[in-house]
Amino acid sequence: MKDGKIHRKIKVHFEPDGVGALVDKGANLLQAAVDAGVHITASCGGAGVCGTCKVLIERGEVESSPSKHITNDDWNRGIRKACQSKVLTDLKVVVPVESRLETAVVSREIDMTAGVGQPAGTVATGWKFKPPLNKCYLELPMPTLSDNTSDLSRLLRGLKKYCNLKYAGVDPGVLKKLPQVMRRKNYRVTATTLVKAVKTQADKRKPTVINIESGNTTRAHLGLAFDIGTTTVCGQLLDLGRGEVIAEAMTRNGQIGYGEDVITRIAYSQRSGGLKKLQQAVVTTINNIIQVLLDNSKFKSEDIGHMTVAGNTVMTHILFGVDPKYIRLAPYTPVANFFPPVKANSLGIVVQSHVHVFSFPCVASYVGGDIVSGVVAAGMHQREKLTFYIDIGTNGEIVIGNSDWMVTAACSAGPAFEGGGIKHGMIATEGAIEDFKIREIGCKPEFRTIGGVKAKGICGSGLINIVAGLLGAGIISQNGKFNFDAEEGRIREGEDGCEYLIVPAPESQTGKDIVITEVDIDNLMRAKAAIFAGCQTLTKNVGVSCADLEQVIIAGAFGSHIDVENSITIGLLPDISRHKFAFVGNGSLSGSRLVSFSTDLLDDARKVATMMTNFELSESPDFMHHYVAGLFLPNTHAGDFPSVKRRLIGLKGR
Amino acid sequence: MKDGKIHRKIKVHFEPDGVGALVDKGANLLQAAVDAGVHITASCGGAGVCGTCKVLIERGEVESSPSKHITNDDWNRGIRKACQSKVLTDLKVVVPVESRLETAVVSREIDMTAGVGQPAGTVATGWKFKPPLNKCYLELPMPTLSDNTSDLSRLLRGLKKYCNLKYAGVDPGVLKKLPQVMRRKNYRVTATTLVKAVKTQADKRKPTVINIESGNTTRAHLGLAFDIGTTTVCGQLLDLGRGEVIAEAMTRNGQIGYGEDVITRIAYSQRSGGLKKLQQAVVTTINNIIQVLLDNSKFKSEDIGHMTVAGNTVMTHILFGVDPKYIRLAPYTPVANFFPPVKANSLGIVVQSHVHVFSFPCVASYVGGDIVSGVVAAGMHQREKLTFYIDIGTNGEIVIGNSDWMVTAACSAGPAFEGGGIKHGMIATEGAIEDFKIREIGCKPEFRTIGGVKAKGICGSGLINIVAGLLGAGIISQNGKFNFDAEEGRIREGEDGCEYLIVPAPESQTGKDIVITEVDIDNLMRAKAAIFAGCQTLTKNVGVSCADLEQVIIAGAFGSHIDVENSITIGLLPDISRHKFAFVGNGSLSGSRLVSFSTDLLDDARKVATMMTNFELSESPDFMHHYVAGLFLPNTHAGDFPSVKRRLIGLKGR
Repeated sequence: MKDGKIHRKIKVHFEPDGVGALVDKGANLLQAAVDAGVHITASCGGAGVCGTCKVLIERGEVESSPSKHITNDDWNRGIRKACQSKVLTDLKVVVPVESRLETAVVSREIDMTAGVGQPAGTVATGWKFKPPLNKCYLELPMPTLSDNTSDLSRLLRGLKKYCNLKYAGVDPGVLKKLPQVMRRKNYRVTATTLVKAVKTQADKRKPTVINIESGNTTRAHLGLAFDIGTTTVCGQLLDLGRGEVIAEAMTRNGQIGYGEDVITRIAYSQRSGGLKKLQQAVVTTINNIIQVLLDNSKFKSEDIGHMTVAGNTVMTHILFGVDPKYIRLAPYTPVANFFPPVKANSLGIVVQSHVHVFSFPCVASYVGGDIVSGVVAAGMHQREKLTFYIDIGTNGEIVIGNSDWMVTAACSAGPAFEGGGIKHGMIATEGAIEDFKIREIGCKPEFRTIGGVKAKGICGSGLINIVAGLLGAGIISQNGKFNFDAEEGRIREGEDGCEYLIVPAPESQTGKDIVITEVDIDNLMRAKAAIFAGCQTLTKNVGVSCADLEQVIIAGAFGSHIDVENSITIGLLPDISRHKFAFVGNGSLSGSRLVSFSTDLLDDARKVATMMTNFELSESPDFMHHYVAGLFLPNTHAGDFPSVKRRLIGLKGR
Repeated sequence: MKDGKIHRKIKVHFEPDGVGALVDKGANLLQAAVDAGVHITASCGGAGVCGTCKVLIERGEVESSPSKHITNDDWNRGIRKACQSKVLTDLKVVVPVESRLETAVVSREIDMTAGVGQPAGTVATGWKFKPPLNKCYLELPMPTLSDNTSDLSRLLRGLKKYCNLKYAGVDPGVLKKLPQVMRRKNYRVTATTLVKAVKTQADKRKPTVINIESGNTTRAHLGLAFDIGTTTVCGQLLDLGRGEVIAEAMTRNGQIGYGEDVITRIAYSQRSGGLKKLQQAVVTTINNIIQVLLDNSKFKSEDIGHMTVAGNTVMTHILFGVDPKYIRLAPYTPVANFFPPVKANSLGIVVQSHVHVFSFPCVASYVGGDIVSGVVAAGMHQREKLTFYIDIGTNGEIVIGNSDWMVTAACSAGPAFEGGGIKHGMIATEGAIEDFKIREIGCKPEFRTIGGVKAKGICGSGLINIVAGLLGAGIISQNGKFNFDAEEGRIREGEDGCEYLIVPAPESQTGKDIVITEVDIDNLMRAKAAIFAGCQTLTKNVGVSCADLEQVIIAGAFGSHIDVENSITIGLLPDISRHKFAFVGNGSLSGSRLVSFSTDLLDDARKVATMMTNFELSESPDFMHHYVAGLFLPNTHAGDFPSVKRRLIGLKGR
C-alpha cells in the first residue's frame, strides 16, 4: 500500500484439495500452499535444488524459470517448481498425485494389545498395568449440616478411601466446574487423575485431579500415543481402561514443506515467525491424525484424557515451541532434554483443556526421545545381553549396551528409509511396494504391496528389497550403477537419469510408471552407509566387535517388516548370525504406547535417558572412513560381509 | 435495535475521575459507573435502601424518584441516588467526596520488618527465613564439545551444586527464553525458583524454576502480600531478599459497588456475568494497589516474582473465579478450602507471567484464609496458652484454642468496623478520626485523626471510641439513643434522624459537618453484639468461661490500634483482666507477609487450617439469645461487665 493504491489480493486455488488462498502479487507459490495448509512435498525446504515440489499451473500466470528438473514437454504443459514460482495472476494450481499422495492421513487396521506385536525377547516385561492417567468413579455421600466440608475435600476424601490416592492435588480448572458437576448426578462423579511427575528418590507419586465428570464415564478413558518423526508422524488411539489400541494412523509430518531433515528445519526456524510456522505445521498434522483416529472409533474428542509423544530432540523442541537454534551450532547444545508436561491445547492440539502432553526425555542434540522410547519398549534396559538397537529413520540413531550401560550415537541418514527423496518413495501404507524379488536372472520382477492393492510407490523396506534384488540379479553393480547389459527393456534413460521400470503405468494406481532411479539408489546407499558407519564406529569405540553382539534390534517406521538377508546384502546391517536380529517396527510409537499404560515404564524412560552416554560421530575420524567404505554394495571392505561376498561371487560364477 | 432504528449510545461523564462511558438509554446509573470503573459506594448493592450512592447530576436528565435519603434542598440542586436513576440523556455526573473519599488507594508510611510491629507473645516465632520464592545467581561454565549437555541440565546442575536445590523442576515458559537468556551474559544467570507445594508427609520440597534472567538480578527480588477483605483490600510490597516491607497501601474492595457483605456478593455472582464482574472488580483493586506500591518504591513490575493472598472463603472463591453459590445455601459447602497456586495473570493481575498467586487455605464457608493467616502470624498454634483470637471485620471471625486444638466460628458483623454503612465512616487512613474523648461532661469533645490532619471521616476504632465517649459522657443512653438533655448544640435532628456533631464544617477536610447518627450507633451496636455473642456462644460450647482465657488477640483492619477499655465499655470485648488483651492490627495481612518470608509458616498454615473445627453459630439457639442481649451498651446482662457497670453507676451518681 506504499503507493497509496489499494492492492487487490490474488486468488490461488489448489486442486485436488479444493482450497483457496488470498496472496499478494509476487508471493512465493510454495509458501502460499504451505500457508493455506496444502501440502506439497519440498524435500530441500524450498531451496530450489530437489525438484520435488512440481505443480501444474492449469490457469493463470506465474513467474518461473526453466530447470533441469522439468522436461520441455512438462514445461510446455505448465509444470513448474512451486518453490521457484512467483504468483502473478489468479491461479488454478493442481498438485500432482506424486506430490500429494502421502499427505492424506492413513489409518491402519491393527489388532494389537499392549506389548503384543513384537517378537518375544524384544519387549519390555515385568511392568504393571497402571496408566499415569486414571479414572475413578465415586459415589460420594451428600453434604449435610454435620458434614459440610468443601466439595473438593469430599472428592479427595473419596479418592483416598475408595481409590487409595493419598495426597492428591488438584488443577485450578477442576474447581471451576466442581460444584455443578458434583451436584448434577447427586455426587456420583468420575475423577480423572494424572501422575504428572516422574518418580524420583525424593518423593512418592502424587496424582493430580485434572478433570471431573458427572456420573460414571470410566468406559470412555482414552489416551493418544504419538511418534513425531522428522518425515512421518504416527499416532495411536489407546483404551487406557483395557490397555488396548483402538486405532492407528500415520501421515507425513506437515513440516516437510519447510525442509527434509532436522538441519533445514532448524534453519527455517530462525526466519521471522519460522518457529511458530513449524510448530503449527506439526500440530496440524497431529490434529489431522487425531481426527482420523476418532473417525475410526466410536469415541469422541472429550473421551481423550492424555497424550504421550516421542520425537527426536529437534522435533520435541519445535513441538513445544522452544528454539532449536543452538542444536546445529557447535558445541550442539539443546535447550532441554527433559520437557515438563504441558497442556495440549496450549500447543494448539485440539483436545479438552485438561489433557497434558508428556514427552520422552531426550539424550543429546541428535539423540532424542524417540530412541529412548524405543529402547524402553524393547526392554533393552532390562537385559544383560549385549544389544545393538538401531532406529532407521531420517535421523538414524543407534544404541549399544545392556541393563548396565548404554552408549548412543546419531547418524543422519536422510529420509530415504521413509521413502523421502526417492522418486516414487512413499510411507509404509496401503499400495506401497514392500517386497520385491527376481527369481531368476532375466525373469520379470515380482512384487507385493501393503494391502495387496495396485502399487502406488515404494516404502523404505521395499527400497531395500528392490536394491538387494537388483544387485542379486546383476541389474545393478556393486557401485549402484545400472548394468545395461543385464536387462533389456526395463533399464532406460528417464528424466532424472538412468532408471529401472518396476511397475508399468497400466498396472499402477497412479497411472504412471513406477521406477527406481540411479539417484534413488545413490540416496539409499548414502543412507545405509551412514547407519552402518555409525554401527562400526560405535562398536569400535566401546571396544567390541560386531561378532560380540548378542542381539540386534531394528526399529523404524519404514515398513511392517524388514528382510534381514536383503539388509545385510546391501550392507545396512552387519553380516552376523541371522537369529540375532529382531525387527520391532516403530519402536518409538511402541514406547509411547507402553508408557501410556504404565508409570513403571515412565520411570524407566527417565532412567534410560540418564544412563545413555552420547558419542558424537561427527567428532570421530573413523566415521568418515567407514562412511566412504559404505558407498558400495555391500561395502568396499568386502571382508566384513563374508556371506554376501560368497553369494555375489557365486552369482558371478554362473 | 428491535424497532429497526439505530440507537445512539448516551454519553455519561463522571467527575472528578474524568471517565466517560457510553450506555443505552434507560441504563442504570450505578451500573454504568461500576462498568466504567468509577467507584460509587453502594452499601446495599444497589437495592435502593441505604442511600450511600448519592451523586450530583450536573448536566442532563435522569429518571429517578424522591427518597427519604435525599433532602428537598439536595433534590433541587440535582442530588440523586445512582442506583435508582435511569439515564435519559447525555450526563455529567459528579461523585461527591463522601462517596469517592475512600476509592483512592492510600499508601501508608511504614517502618516494619518481618514480625516487628506486633506485641511480643503475639507473633509466630521459631521460623527460618526461607521464602518460597528464591533467587540464585549462577556463573555457569560455558558449554564445550566435551560438556555439551542441554541448557536446562546445565542450569539444574548449577542449582544443585551452588544452591543445594535437588530435583528441581522447570516451568515450560522458562524453556522458551532459556537459550537466549543464558547466552546474553555468558552463562551468568539468575534463576528464580518457587516451592509450589505445601510439604506433606509424602515428599521433600521440590522447587520449580519459574524464571530465568541474564546477569545478577538478586537485588530485585520482590513479593506481594495481600489481605483481600470484603470491604477493604490491603497490600504490601516485600523485599524477599532482605525480609522487609517496602511499601503498604490499602483501598476499598472494588466489589463494594455490588453489595456490602458476602451474602449480597454471592447473590450478585449468580446473575449473568456476575461472577466475572466481581472477579474483575477485585482484580482492578489489586492492580491499583500494586501500581501505588510500585510508585512508592524504586522497583518495577518485573521485579515482582510472587504473591500471597489471604481472604475469607467467599473472597477467595471469587478471586479465583470459582462459583460461591453453595456457600449461602444449606448445608453451606464451599467448592474448596484449598486453592492450588495459579498464574497471577491468568486472573488478570498485571504482573510478569511467571508470578504465582498463593492463597491461604480456608476452613469452612464463613471461616476463611484470612483467619488462618492471622492465627499463623500470631503464633497461636505454637503456644499452650488458652487463647481467644478475634478478627473484627465485616465478617467477624473468632478462634478459641491453643497448639493442641482450635474451634472457630464466624459472625456476620457488617462493615461498621471498617467504616462501612456509617454516614461519615471511612477506612483507617489519613484524616480518619481515630481517638475521641470528652474530658468532662459538658466539655467540647477532643479528637485525633490518623496523620494529624483535618478530619475527613471516622474509622472503625474511632467509632468505638466515639460511642464509648458519648456513653461515658451521658450523651447517649445504654440503648444507644441520644439524650437531648445532656448536651446543647451538638445533638440535633439531621437528614438521617438524630445526630451528634463531631467536627463542624469549617474545621473538616470535606467542608461539611462530620457527625455520628443514631443509625450509625445502631449499626455499631449490631456489629459488636454479633461479635460478642459469637464469643459467648463459642466459649460456652467448648466448655470454658471468659475468665479462663489466658490471652485475647484482637485483629482487624479498622485502625492502627484499638482502645481495649472503650471496647469493653461498649460490650465488644469481655470484661476481663486488661493485660490479657493484645492488638495485632491487620493479622491477615501479617500472615500473608510472613508466609512470603518462610516456607515453615506456609506449612503451618496448612496444618492450622486442618486442625480448626468450625462451629456453626447460626445452628445454635444460644447465639440469638446472646445477640439480642448485646443490642445494649454494654449488654443487658450487666453482670457480665462488672467494671463497666461500676463506672456507669459512678457516672450516674455524680
